Amino acid sequence: MTVNFRRAVKTDVPAIVAMLADDPLGATRENAADMSAYFDAFDSIDADPGELLIVADRDGEVVGTLQLTFLHGLSRGGAIRAQIEAVRVRSDARSGGLGKRLIEWAIDESRRRGCHLVQLTSDRTRVDAHRFYEKLGFSGTHLGYKLTLV
Amino acid sequence: MTVNFRRAVKTDVPAIVAMLADDPLGATRENAADMSAYFDAFDSIDADPGELLIVADRDGEVVGTLQLTFLHGLSRGGAIRAQIEAVRVRSDARSGGLGKRLIEWAIDESRRRGCHLVQLTSDRTRVDAHRFYEKLGFSGTHLGYKLTLV
Repeated sequence: MTVNFRRAVKTDVPAIVAMLADDPLGATRENAADMSAYFDAFDSIDADPGELLIVADRDGEVVGTLQLTFLHGLSRGGAIRAQIEAVRVRSDARSGGLGKRLIEWAIDESRRRGCHLVQLTSDRTRVDAHRFYEKLGFSGTHLGYKLTLV
Repeated sequence: MTVNFRRAVKTDVPAIVAMLADDPLGATRENAADMSAYFDAFDSIDADPGELLIVADRDGEVVGTLQLTFLHGLSRGGAIRAQIEAVRVRSDARSGGLGKRLIEWAIDESRRRGCHLVQLTSDRTRVDAHRFYEKLGFSGTHLGYKLTLV
């Protein structure tokens, strides 16, 4: 059984959305009954060279995902930042180190693209996730603020 | 005296970098003596339709800045997020409400572009900034993690 990390294709979208929804926070925010908005969003991500949607493919089945965005900015000497969003491992594929390999893959890809840092935010209630990122070398130096518009 | 919020142009870069460096955290991270990396980064930002570098222009002088990035994603029903980074108000232009107007401008622009939420992170040591964002309606629901690669 091998796991391959690869760029997502459109036919992966239902499996990705199912993982986004199978989550205490995601369950209240996702609506897998209406897939059209997700397919439209996929097209926007896929067309943008600064966005990279990744899946963990285990023998043809999608068992994990994350999104990387490469952000240009003036600060830190004109550094490129990689931002990780929407990390999920399918519930039956957890506890075997897949999440760790997925994040390490993202870090390696960010380094390969010349990024100076990798950043992400995690909901304050996801205490297990905080330990997970700290073990991978991340420092929780920031507070993450959100303002919902709609 | 009027303040105009507008897209940054290349000749604004030195004034923006001076503001990034004039800051307890930025002072250790910026090197205004070598501007070439900043000009290159400006070109990348300016060429990317998903990035918008803004300055507050007061009678022809740059007195504030922030960067907006528009992120496509599958989560939250395929929502577009606006992310604010690198917020600065020139030290002699503070306490007059300019920062508030700058963030409100960014929120309005994000709404105009169909974003579902606006997000940002703020270093844990910037306690005044936390109060500022909370007054503007932001909720500090997340922890922000960073991993420096270089």
